[in-house]
Amino acid sequence: GYAKIDHHRSLRTGLPEVIYAAGKTPAQTAEIFSRMAATGVAVLATRATSETFEAVHTLTPEATYHPIARAITHGSALTTQGKIAVLSAGTSDLPVAEEAAVTAELFGVRVTRITDVGVAGVHRLLAHRDTLSNADAIIVCAGMEGALPSVVGGLVGVPVIAVPTSVGYGASFAGAAALLGMLNSCSPNVTVVNIDNGFGAAYTATLIAHAAHR
Amino acid sequence: GYAKIDHHRSLRTGLPEVIYAAGKTPAQTAEIFSRMAATGVAVLATRATSETFEAVHTLTPEATYHPIARAITHGSALTTQGKIAVLSAGTSDLPVAEEAAVTAELFGVRVTRITDVGVAGVHRLLAHRDTLSNADAIIVCAGMEGALPSVVGGLVGVPVIAVPTSVGYGASFAGAAALLGMLNSCSPNVTVVNIDNGFGAAYTATLIAHAAHR
Amino acid sequence: GYAKIDHHRSLRTGLPEVIYAAGKTPAQTAEIFSRMAATGVAVLATRATSETFEAVHTLTPEATYHPIARAITHGSALTTQGKIAVLSAGTSDLPVAEEAAVTAELFGVRVTRITDVGVAGVHRLLAHRDTLSNADAIIVCAGMEGALPSVVGGLVGVPVIAVPTSVGYGASFAGAAALLGMLNSCSPNVTVVNIDNGFGAAYTATLIAHAAHR
Amino acid sequence: GYAKIDHHRSLRTGLPEVIYAAGKTPAQTAEIFSRMAATGVAVLATRATSETFEAVHTLTPEATYHPIARAITHGSALTTQGKIAVLSAGTSDLPVAEEAAVTAELFGVRVTRITDVGVAGVHRLLAHRDTLSNADAIIVCAGMEGALPSVVGGLVGVPVIAVPTSVGYGASFAGAAALLGMLNSCSPNVTVVNIDNGFGAAYTATLIAHAAHR
Amino acid sequence: GYAKIDHHRSLRTGLPEVIYAAGKTPAQTAEIFSRMAATGVAVLATRATSETFEAVHTLTPEATYHPIARAITHGSALTTQGKIAVLSAGTSDLPVAEEAAVTAELFGVRVTRITDVGVAGVHRLLAHRDTLSNADAIIVCAGMEGALPSVVGGLVGVPVIAVPTSVGYGASFAGAAALLGMLNSCSPNVTVVNIDNGFGAAYTATLIAHAAHR
Amino acid sequence: GYAKIDHHRSLRTGLPEVIYAAGKTPAQTAEIFSRMAATGVAVLATRATSETFEAVHTLTPEATYHPIARAITHGSALTTQGKIAVLSAGTSDLPVAEEAAVTAELFGVRVTRITDVGVAGVHRLLAHRDTLSNADAIIVCAGMEGALPSVVGGLVGVPVIAVPTSVGYGASFAGAAALLGMLNSCSPNVTVVNIDNGFGAAYTATLIAHAAHR
Amino acid sequence: GYAKIDHHRSLRTGLPEVIYAAGKTPAQTAEIFSRMAATGVAVLATRATSETFEAVHTLTPEATYHPIARAITHGSALTTQGKIAVLSAGTSDLPVAEEAAVTAELFGVRVTRITDVGVAGVHRLLAHRDTLSNADAIIVCAGMEGALPSVVGGLVGVPVIAVPTSVGYGASFAGAAALLGMLNSCSPNVTVVNIDNGFGAAYTATLIAHAAHR
Amino acid sequence: GYAKIDHHRSLRTGLPEVIYAAGKTPAQTAEIFSRMAATGVAVLATRATSETFEAVHTLTPEATYHPIARAITHGSALTTQGKIAVLSAGTSDLPVAEEAAVTAELFGVRVTRITDVGVAGVHRLLAHRDTLSNADAIIVCAGMEGALPSVVGGLVGVPVIAVPTSVGYGASFAGAAALLGMLNSCSPNVTVVNIDNGFGAAYTATLIAHAAHR
Ligand SMILES: Nc1ncnc2c1ncn2[C@@H]1O[C@H](COP(=O)(O)O)[C@@H](O)[C@H]1O
Ligand SMILES: Nc1ncnc2c1ncn2[C@@H]1O[C@H](COP(=O)(O)O)[C@@H](O)[C@H]1O
Ligand SMILES: Nc1ncnc2c1ncn2[C@@H]1O[C@H](COP(=O)(O)O)[C@@H](O)[C@H]1O
Ligand SMILES: Nc1ncnc2c1ncn2[C@@H]1O[C@H](COP(=O)(O)O)[C@@H](O)[C@H]1O
Ligand SMILES: [Mg+2]
Ligand SMILES: [Mg+2]
Ligand SMILES: [Mg+2]
Ligand SMILES: [Mg+2]
Ligand SMILES: [Mg+2]
Ligand SMILES: [Mg+2]
Ligand SMILES: [Mg+2]
Ligand SMILES: [Mg+2]
Repeated sequence: GYAKIDHHRSLRTGLPEVIYAAGKTPAQTAEIFSRMAATGVAVLATRATSETFEAVHTLTPEATYHPIARAITHGSALTTQGKIAVLSAGTSDLPVAEEAAVTAELFGVRVTRITDVGVAGVHRLLAHRDTLSNADAIIVCAGMEGALPSVVGGLVGVPVIAVPTSVGYGASFAGAAALLGMLNSCSPNVTVVNIDNGFGAAYTATLIAHAAHR
Repeated sequence: GYAKIDHHRSLRTGLPEVIYAAGKTPAQTAEIFSRMAATGVAVLATRATSETFEAVHTLTPEATYHPIARAITHGSALTTQGKIAVLSAGTSDLPVAEEAAVTAELFGVRVTRITDVGVAGVHRLLAHRDTLSNADAIIVCAGMEGALPSVVGGLVGVPVIAVPTSVGYGASFAGAAALLGMLNSCSPNVTVVNIDNGFGAAYTATLIAHAAHR
Repeated sequence: GYAKIDHHRSLRTGLPEVIYAAGKTPAQTAEIFSRMAATGVAVLATRATSETFEAVHTLTPEATYHPIARAITHGSALTTQGKIAVLSAGTSDLPVAEEAAVTAELFGVRVTRITDVGVAGVHRLLAHRDTLSNADAIIVCAGMEGALPSVVGGLVGVPVIAVPTSVGYGASFAGAAALLGMLNSCSPNVTVVNIDNGFGAAYTATLIAHAAHR
Repeated sequence: GYAKIDHHRSLRTGLPEVIYAAGKTPAQTAEIFSRMAATGVAVLATRATSETFEAVHTLTPEATYHPIARAITHGSALTTQGKIAVLSAGTSDLPVAEEAAVTAELFGVRVTRITDVGVAGVHRLLAHRDTLSNADAIIVCAGMEGALPSVVGGLVGVPVIAVPTSVGYGASFAGAAALLGMLNSCSPNVTVVNIDNGFGAAYTATLIAHAAHR
Repeated sequence: GYAKIDHHRSLRTGLPEVIYAAGKTPAQTAEIFSRMAATGVAVLATRATSETFEAVHTLTPEATYHPIARAITHGSALTTQGKIAVLSAGTSDLPVAEEAAVTAELFGVRVTRITDVGVAGVHRLLAHRDTLSNADAIIVCAGMEGALPSVVGGLVGVPVIAVPTSVGYGASFAGAAALLGMLNSCSPNVTVVNIDNGFGAAYTATLIAHAAHR
Repeated sequence: GYAKIDHHRSLRTGLPEVIYAAGKTPAQTAEIFSRMAATGVAVLATRATSETFEAVHTLTPEATYHPIARAITHGSALTTQGKIAVLSAGTSDLPVAEEAAVTAELFGVRVTRITDVGVAGVHRLLAHRDTLSNADAIIVCAGMEGALPSVVGGLVGVPVIAVPTSVGYGASFAGAAALLGMLNSCSPNVTVVNIDNGFGAAYTATLIAHAAHR
Repeated sequence: GYAKIDHHRSLRTGLPEVIYAAGKTPAQTAEIFSRMAATGVAVLATRATSETFEAVHTLTPEATYHPIARAITHGSALTTQGKIAVLSAGTSDLPVAEEAAVTAELFGVRVTRITDVGVAGVHRLLAHRDTLSNADAIIVCAGMEGALPSVVGGLVGVPVIAVPTSVGYGASFAGAAALLGMLNSCSPNVTVVNIDNGFGAAYTATLIAHAAHR
Repeated sequence: GYAKIDHHRSLRTGLPEVIYAAGKTPAQTAEIFSRMAATGVAVLATRATSETFEAVHTLTPEATYHPIARAITHGSALTTQGKIAVLSAGTSDLPVAEEAAVTAELFGVRVTRITDVGVAGVHRLLAHRDTLSNADAIIVCAGMEGALPSVVGGLVGVPVIAVPTSVGYGASFAGAAALLGMLNSCSPNVTVVNIDNGFGAAYTATLIAHAAHR
């Protein structure tokens, strides 16, 4: 077939390969999904439409759809170790934040969601200080000016993974403004992933949280 | 001569014309400066090197040099009305903040300077809440991710004029990252001027402060 | 729920929070709208389609739709103080200009609309000189080369808030050309907001006009 | 040698080839200049430093240096036909405007220079209406927001050739903002050349003026 | 109404105002079109869909639709003076070239169309040398690398107006590559208009051709 | 003074504040450095010229200069926990890699340096597989196409922090090409920091390594 | 007609002209296709929808549609000489890779396809080393970070033609990130074509392979 | 040491490794150069200043400096096979063209240099048609609009390797305009390398020419 599942990866990296459904037909995703489910590992498909879920569901009836995250999951991690916080600045950032949260949970990490804590009302964020201090890593999803990771980064002593989102209009340039803001963060504990890449942020946060509790 | 002083402007706009020294020789700046000083108005030259000041000083001995702001002033406004705050995120933003402060003072506004209150340590900013609440307008100078105006904007009910600075490196793209961040501010009371344009920010802040006390 | 209404904001800033409908389903907007209307404040939703209005109208029958502005309003400000002018360069800039005008009126400011006064026929603008001189602040909406705010700024002694619009094609790059032109304005009383952000311009203009008549 | 003078060009195009000195050593420019001067045509070298002029002067003692234009000329056109106006928005645009003016004069066109008529004081421009109406073509040099060509274009019925200049800072991006503004001009009689390309503007203006008086 | 027809323009500039239909509803365009047709001048609407034409046709039955050019015309110029050539590099550039040709014809200029003469087969262009030499001005429409104007410019002694088109994909960036190529043309008789702006090119070419035969 | 040392930071974040010398005079850096050294914490100044080191050395004789890293250090961490690998693709990436290595060592992490393992000779990298597998986190510094982090990321199960460097020319656009490549990495364990920001990469790598050995 | 078939081309260049269907109506493509098929040469249309194929099929029943490649072919090369490899990094790059493979096969080159060998699992690529060493030229199609050509280039001594694809999201900027990565390749045997231009890559690869076996 | 010479490369790729001197001190380059010269292979250092040559010359007295190409060579290829043409559009493109020519000659290819054949005088190019037809590959170096490769590509049936140069000003954006033009070439036999990368172009041209004569 067109897709060679990288079975070595989970040996090399400790986490299973994941299906990126955006570039595939529903049939292609469903077929790969069921092949992977058959091996017994936890399976994740990201950027999946409800149409894709229907195709997956036919071949793999126990699969679950997470509509806000646009993700399909099957099975679960063997153990759960560590905890992270997933923050979103505004309502429109929720799909990206949910992609991150669903990914981390499937990989075996406890997740606290904190929503609508944009920097224009900084008291809303400060109310969550305790939760932030107790996380092993923090994922911050924000569009527009992307300022939230810097403020969060200054409050804690753990890695902050910033996810710029494509939320905004005009000079947001589909997330580029938020991306640039995050790359220039004056908080040195901030690293950055691609625009809307909640999955990647969760992948790294999971590695950090697991290592902290090994 | 090459420069036509726009005497109409101060009639139309209430504030005198200002000399932008960057594109002029010291001799050109000095000659225009002394012609304007002779008319009795307060005179300001921005982006002036110490070499330019020497030329100005020879023709106009009472002129004053402000080295951090890189500005030359002469005379003063007839009255002082209203007060503004000028904030800077980091040490390197000071030249831009000082250009703003010197301009506003010459035009007849009281200025409170608040320095080194970047968003990576937000408690430093919150300590100045009272001063911020009492200003007629607030100028915020920040480079790198340019997040400070959004946080300030969420704390007050007055116009915040954001000045992106060219401070930073790499993906700051000489101030473009800060500029984009400020344009996408989620605080609706933020408007923006050109990168490093402390002068323009002070001009508008002065108009606002004067009108509020007329 | 997903949205935490920032009731502190109106205490801090004097103006109520506003609903940005673009990133929300009609049902979400309608629900937040009715919750806010119930508190008795004037309510505004921007970027609302007629479909969204129908959902809002069902829960809040007294709400009004402004189709050119794509805004929904309910109630009104307690008092009206000050006056602003809202200019648009061409017919296609009207939606942005109307978003600004409707916002300012709801917030309690008198608004004069001046349309189709682009710089290619500068005599059309000069005919409105008196109106311009009497405003507390001026909002100028223009796409393409975005030159109008500079010309207006040179005629008056009040703040000019420039709103670049996404009107144009080719090298207008969806408003980026107008935005850059406005940021580089040689009129020092010009500040700039995001492309198509009539709402933000009106917010700041309202603060200026109210302060001038307090 | 490294440079093949294109003698065909003046046959094909009616105007002699011109030396672009920026990419050449003083010795190279001087040698090409003297070879061309020997053929009897009018010779022009643009972007020439005073150091380059010294080398040229040694081989071609009758050559003239135009320091503001940074141009070297020798000889003159056989006849002078038509007239153009060369406008500059600010003092810093003069080098580009002078490159245009010196080029057109050498090619045989009468030139009226109009300086310091930026759009922030539009009455200064309107005072020159008669001169503008009588030109065969108009060259407009402006940096920053580059708004002047649109206003000029709306006043006249002749071609306006817009030259963006690299004057400005920050979001002027070395002339790119002015360039974009001019390309999006709402005056349909505006065409545009490269940033700082006074030479090219004069070349086309000369062709237009000559044709109008043939 | 929303649109103020600039009757002064045709007095100032010798050519009538033109309707840009892209930003207007069919009804708006039809109403302005019929108002202008009633004054007896030649009328042109550009960027008009067939749907817009139907609305225009209802109010102004004698109007003509030019489907490739996406233009609607009515009436004609009083006299025809001068001639231009309109070149297109490839088949996909035809809409832009036709917009230019239809505009110039309506304004009273004779037009020769030369199609499919891209630079990858330069002999096709050289075969048209005589036609090119006899034109008063040449319009060159090209997408992708936009190289054609430079080659044409080197063959003739008249102004070449380059129109970058949005034809291409990938790194053509919707015409930006062609635009940059044309602005950097090594042929000094090339000036440039906005991407896809056949209308503007024709406007200036008309002014040049008319002046050459006055 | 102009700089408010953020003593809270080390309480909040576990790591001391660091001096960014690029925007400061040698005297400013030296003064802040000695104030911080007096408090007994380990002190680091990044982007320090040898001239700055001389000023620091005068006030703080025990300070050490790291010329390739352009860093000044004083003291050391109380304990050393965990180990990281710092990779560089080519010789020119060494200054950035050394900034990272010196920072991590001062903060108390063991560092293995692996140099000159660019992807054009992938066998050089594969030879280091064991070292890579044993690190708690890996920092990868690369300019030009920035491909190394993706290859490394595919070999290991720990976080990879990618540092684009400004090494390259032409279309490297001073590190932007490498930055974009890293943001689009197909290895999900890659996060990214600003161009040339070895310091920030080391900060996050330190947090990860410390947490893994707590 | 609008399209002049360049019959000289195949004389000059040894390969027939090709139809780019993207900018043409199905009817236009079908008509040109049948005219070319009538001359007896192998015919290729790229970027053809199934709708276009239907139109072609009606006029030229023996034409074949390649749905993944979106290409239509007719006939075949007289002889087949040389062999190339066409690599794709991921499943979504297949349409571009197939456009390249179909083109080269029609032109008379043997093609080995190697799919799903992205750099995040470099062992998958190394398994194909023998095939790579035996090719006359290698085409590498990759989106996202575009790192694969550099790794391939370091393994072989033949030209590698890199095709960036528009696969990716966010900061991939529709293929621009991959394009920049490939242009900055540290493997000196890599040259680059436009984003998604599988056709152009195959054209050059064919010339190389044919010459190597002449 | 810091640099690991990749001796495998010449086994894998048939051509020796090359020293890129731009990122190295003269001493570093000299040391690597002499180490490589000692192994008996032909040695090349690119981007070498005369200061670097002095250091190289001290350790390797038989090394030769090519000042226009800014290259240092030592030894020669064992055999010379095939021939290429190296074209440059203008005088300022010579350093890049010479880097290409010197590289190919050292690698064992015959080189014909053709200079000053820019597209503004296309007859100059057509005069060289025979030479072009006889080359195994053609390298074309051009700045500004970068149109030359398209015209050359249309004249021949061999691979054309386009090298954009950083020659130009303003909207040439240091070679980006030429690069984009070349990537969008309508001649399908054109592939592209990085701005100013004469070395890379010669590397690939050498591989093609050698294979054609094996
Ligand atoms: N048209 C608009 N453009 C920019 N910001 C807006 C707009 N409308 C509302 N807002 C802002 O968006 C905030 C609400 O965002 P949200 O919580 O996502 O509904 C408000 O506080 C406003 O400041
Ligand atoms: N300032 C200038 N800007 C753009 N092009 C120029 C300039 N001066 C001369 N040229 C053009 O450069 C060509 C000569 O280039 P070169 O052969 O490199 O000296 C002339 O034919 C002119 O068309
Ligand atoms: N090389 C560096 N790159 C980015 N940030 C740095 C660097 N060195 C120090 N910093 C940060 O800069 C802050 C100090 O900035 P400042 O107050 O301007 O001295 C520290 O808290 C660090 O987080
Ligand atoms: N002028 C050049 N442009 C691009 N790459 C070059 C150049 N000169 C040498 N190289 C490449 O740089 C590699 C050596 O890089 P380094 O190890 O940093 O010396 C060689 O293998 C060449 O492929
Ligand atoms: Mg909210
Ligand atoms: Mg600080
Ligand atoms: Mg109008
Ligand atoms: Mg002036
Ligand atoms: Mg064709
Ligand atoms: Mg190396
Ligand atoms: Mg795969
Ligand atoms: Mg030349």
